Amino acid sequence: MFTDEYYMKLALQEAQEAYEKDEVPVGCVVVSNNRIIARSHNLTETLNDVTAHAEMQAITSAANFLGGKYLINCTLYVTLEPCVMCCGALSWAQISRVIIGARDQQRGFIGKNLQLHPKTEFVTGILENECSSIVKEFFKTKR
Amino acid sequence: MFTDEYYMKLALQEAQEAYEKDEVPVGCVVVSNNRIIARSHNLTETLNDVTAHAEMQAITSAANFLGGKYLINCTLYVTLEPCVMCCGALSWAQISRVIIGARDQQRGFIGKNLQLHPKTEFVTGILENECSSIVKEFFKTKR
Repeated sequence: MFTDEYYMKLALQEAQEAYEKDEVPVGCVVVSNNRIIARSHNLTETLNDVTAHAEMQAITSAANFLGGKYLINCTLYVTLEPCVMCCGALSWAQISRVIIGARDQQRGFIGKNLQLHPKTEFVTGILENECSSIVKEFFKTKR
Repeated sequence: MFTDEYYMKLALQEAQEAYEKDEVPVGCVVVSNNRIIARSHNLTETLNDVTAHAEMQAITSAANFLGGKYLINCTLYVTLEPCVMCCGALSWAQISRVIIGARDQQRGFIGKNLQLHPKTEFVTGILENECSSIVKEFFKTKR
């Protein structure tokens, strides 16, 4: 049951919530010992705040839950490849694993030759089609 | 009176407040039309939150003040070169100017070949010695 696909589906539900608020639909969950300790979706428009990406909120929220700033033994599932800002934040957090749905060729950190923390393992392409489709669908309605 | 040095001194006062809280001493202010609309210092230890860098708080705070997420016609004065995370956030904010005190060779965005927004002008080396000294002094007490 507790597969990467399982948790990515929950991240996709978060993305769907963002979509319904007219936010760029990106969602994420943070999991520690098979338990969800944070979930969030992009809220940059709602909060008028460029820093309110799903990952940023999830990092803050997970750290609050854990009572410490390092996300050791935590996995972040995110529907879209993190941007430069979120990559930087995930590096500071020394999170153990980052599981990515769709790549973001334009804004994602991978194409900028940035690295997560040396301790961080990362995987891309989990439920890639679903994660990519929701973003494409969103921008189609905007043009 | 309203020189870059003037505002950097205020950012240094913020860094000093961080120092007194046993936080890595980095401070910043955001100025719009010669008015300070946000001021902050690093609070990562106090808040147990890796995202609580001075710049991140200042971006959120300035956007709240302005009622919009883009920091047009705003200048951020920061005592230490922003990291990858803060560089990403400043790019999203499309801030007009970033004025940096000391370089951060290890963690700063410049050495990572990252860019701020194309609209953003940036300058380094304002009150460089003072901005650098406070960080060096802090880490000396830690070793």
